[in-house]
Parts: sequence; C-alpha cells; structure tokens
Amino acid sequence: MINRLVIIGVGLIGGSLALALRKAGFVGEIIGSSRREPHLQKAVELGVIDRYDLDMASAVEGADVVFLSVPLGAMRGVFEAIRPALGAETIITDGGSAKGCVVRDAEAVFGSVPKGLVPGHPIAGTEQSGVGAAFAELYQDRRVILTPLETTAPEALNTVRAMWQAAGALVEEMAVSHHDEVLAATSHLPHMLAFGLVDSLARMKDNDEIFRYAAGGFRDFTRIASSDPVMWRDICLYNRDAVLKMTESYHRDLDEMMQAIERGDGDALLEIFSRAKAARDRFCG
Amino acid sequence: MINRLVIIGVGLIGGSLALALRKAGFVGEIIGSSRREPHLQKAVELGVIDRYDLDMASAVEGADVVFLSVPLGAMRGVFEAIRPALGAETIITDGGSAKGCVVRDAEAVFGSVPKGLVPGHPIAGTEQSGVGAAFAELYQDRRVILTPLETTAPEALNTVRAMWQAAGALVEEMAVSHHDEVLAATSHLPHMLAFGLVDSLARMKDNDEIFRYAAGGFRDFTRIASSDPVMWRDICLYNRDAVLKMTESYHRDLDEMMQAIERGDGDALLEIFSRAKAARDRFCG
Repeated sequence: MINRLVIIGVGLIGGSLALALRKAGFVGEIIGSSRREPHLQKAVELGVIDRYDLDMASAVEGADVVFLSVPLGAMRGVFEAIRPALGAETIITDGGSAKGCVVRDAEAVFGSVPKGLVPGHPIAGTEQSGVGAAFAELYQDRRVILTPLETTAPEALNTVRAMWQAAGALVEEMAVSHHDEVLAATSHLPHMLAFGLVDSLARMKDNDEIFRYAAGGFRDFTRIASSDPVMWRDICLYNRDAVLKMTESYHRDLDEMMQAIERGDGDALLEIFSRAKAARDRFCG
Repeated sequence: MINRLVIIGVGLIGGSLALALRKAGFVGEIIGSSRREPHLQKAVELGVIDRYDLDMASAVEGADVVFLSVPLGAMRGVFEAIRPALGAETIITDGGSAKGCVVRDAEAVFGSVPKGLVPGHPIAGTEQSGVGAAFAELYQDRRVILTPLETTAPEALNTVRAMWQAAGALVEEMAVSHHDEVLAATSHLPHMLAFGLVDSLARMKDNDEIFRYAAGGFRDFTRIASSDPVMWRDICLYNRDAVLKMTESYHRDLDEMMQAIERGDGDALLEIFSRAKAARDRFCG
C-alpha cells in the first residue's frame, strides 16, 4: 500500500498505472505533475489523479513513491527539479524504455545513484498516447522489468515490485545493460524498421497509390510506426549504443538474404524463412 | 456466371474463391486439381469443390475458366501440363503475387501469351494457408489487381472481372511491371524485413529470453513472418528485380536514419518519425 503516489507525466503509462492501483486499492492519494496543465486537468476530470501541482518540487513533498513517466530526454530535468524536495526515504521509479541513460542521469544529478531509485520498464503500451488512452488493465499479465542496482535499498525494490504486482503485472529483474540490449532487439529495432519503411514509401513518387494497395500484413507490420515520434527520438538517442549494435547485426543478416535473392539461391531463402516462421510460431503463436 | 471452373491448387486463395463464387451463385461446377490428393479430398469433404482430378490436363477439359493458385515456381509446370487440353476459348487467370514472371512463363510455354490469359492478384490472405483456412468472405471489399496485356481478349477480361466482383472484391487494372514494383514495396519488402528480423533474433544467443520480452508491437510487426516459406521463397525469386530495387532504396533510407542516431541528431530523427507517423495515420488510420 502506497499512501501518497506522485506521477510525473500523466499519459498512457502513468495514467494506466494510477487507474490500476486505485482499482486495486493499493494507493491513498495520487498527485500528478508535469509542464502541461491541460493534460493534468483532463487527468483530474477523468478521475485518474486526485489533484495536480505544476511545481514538481512541491508535488513530490511528502511522497512515498514518485513515478516518472516522461520521455527519456526529460528524465534529467525532472531529477533536477525534484531533488531539493525529496525525502530521505522517498522511492523513485520510472517507466522509461531504456535504463542505462536513466541511471546515468540520476548519477549526474544526485552525485551517486540514490538508494531509493528502482529503474523500471513496463513492457506494455499501445501506439496511442495521452491520458485519454489510459485504462486500468494495461498492465494485466504484462511483464515489468526492474533493473535494481547494487546500491538499491531492498525495501524500495520490494515496494516497487508490489506496486506493479498490484497493477496486475509480472515483475522480473534484469541487469541494466542486458535490459537495454534485449529491448533494442525486440522493440527499438522493429520500431526503426517500421518508421523507416513507412517513411521510405511516403517519399516515393505516387506514394498515394502505393499505400492504397497495402493489405492487412502491411497494416500490422507498420502499426508501430504510428507511435509517438518524440518518445522514439529519445529512445534512439538515449539507447544509442544498443540500438546501433542490434541494427548492425540485423543489417548483416539482411544483406545475406538480399545476396541470396540476387544469386537466385532458393534453398538459402527457404532455410531463412522456415527458421523464422518456426521461431515466430513457437514464441508468439 | 461460369459453368465450369477449374481450380489448380485448392488452398486458402483458391478455396476461398470457390466458396465465395458458390455462395454468390456465380458458378456451376467446381473441379479441383493439384498434386496433393489428401488436400483435394479435404476440399471435397469441406464442400469447397465438387470433385477433383489429379490429372491436370483432363481436369481442365471443358473448363470455362481455369484459376491457378499455386506458388509462382509451379506456374510454368502447370501451364505445360494443361496446354494440350485447353480449349480455344478457355479463360486462364491466376492469383500469383507477382505478374511479370507469370507472363514470361506463359510466353515460354505457349509461344506467345494466350489471348485468354488474364493475370491477376487478389490483395488478400492471412498468414494461414491450406484449404482448411478458406472462407467465403476473404475477398469481401478487398482489392484484386488484374494486369491484362494488349493481346488479352476483352471478353476474357470481362469474365474474370465479373468473377472477382461476384466474390465481393474491388477490381482494378494495372500494368504488369507497375504491379510488381508496387507490391514489392508494400508487401514483399515488409515480408523480407519481418522474416529477417525474426531469424536474426532467433540466431542470437539467449534467443529464448529475447523473445520472452517481445511485446504486442513485436507480435504485430512479425505476424507476416509466420507466412508460408515456400510461397515467399518463390516471390523473392520470381519478383527478384523489383524486390531488390525496393530493398536498395529502403536500405539507403535506413542508413541515413542510423547515421542520424550515430551522430545524435534528434531533429533529423524527429522529422523521419513524424513524417512516417503522419503517413501511416493518413493511409492506414
């Protein structure tokens, strides 16, 4: 049970957490903060938060848990803003899609990583964004990865784990750098490929006609290209090394496939496609 | 109205056409043929075809329309098999995902393109295959592209157009080479990217763990990697030039994106992602 939860950035991720915790009776008061008053007003109207405070420092005063769900590029500024007002026991966690950069930002702002910091990443979301898209079931049976550090206080980790479990999630732990590579492979790289494909086609001559013949497969494949551009810009910048590493590995494999097409090597293609189908059917079937 | 329709290859595509035409009362007798007797038996049991004939030549005797729904690599062999038994007025059409190769195969087998040949491509399908997955509504409101040649008889074109309209489809016409490039961009290239990504991840160390953290976006993005490997091998081989052309163009754009990530150019990334999101929301929203 959390007495006072402060959510910085009340959109799909933060808003859905608020709704889930309230539904579970796991939270007393929920206070929102961000730089966008109309969004916060809407969050109050929708019953997602109890009240809001545009001043992040005064918002976090007396908080038991502070949850940061802002773009990765905004994390450092939020740490700076809340630092003077944080209590000695305040737990800080976040929902950022990369974790190394959050830890580095915290180190830079606090001098060392605060023992109350539990970096986290809910593997959930839709291509929608904003508090209007938030719903209490978003985290039901979804994985949440926590990447505690050696310095992280066990009670902080326990509270954040219990919070996500109350929201319905399956909580796992992972090292920061491992998280960033796994997510680069399964999430960040696919987003780059989808954004890249849609943009590549949009820049072609007669692109209206091209998109007209796009069938269901294309729609599914490119759904993630409707995601929030600012969030994805930040992920690329802040998880750069892992994204580039995974992309290079993928590029090499794709080049091999293209060479097989060029030399008309049907056996090589059949092997690649069969292996891919088997893996997809096995893991996502 | 078609008195006798012969379907060579009774899977998802051919089977769904049969079900749709029967439901519309647009066809008298439907005869199936292929080299796989168990599939044909199943098609009879499911009520998809009236009867079957394993000999393709005798199957097409007396046919008004012959529909080929076999992998692109099998088209030429089917043309050779049915050539001696075709009537002067028999209409031949197909459901292949590339059209240039079908026209070239027909030219090679018949000496010149038969005036009864109407190359066609229904832009429909699921990642399922086989006659068990066939259903009468597959083509409802889906586009079917016909790529008639200068030599195509107008009455053949009219009959094939009416057939697809009876199945519920929206019929359009396009030049052969234009069809092959548009489909390379909107369908063949995305399939290569999805097959390539899943295979690339499957070949990584700890791939079990990697797939475990794949969320909904990854599932959508890679759904097409569960498609039939033989069909896609053939598409790559038989639409090679257009696939390679579109892939090269995409590769150049993706390289630009990776360079932007490497130099930390957030403005360039935001521009690409925003343009892609706008295009996707506009065309597929």
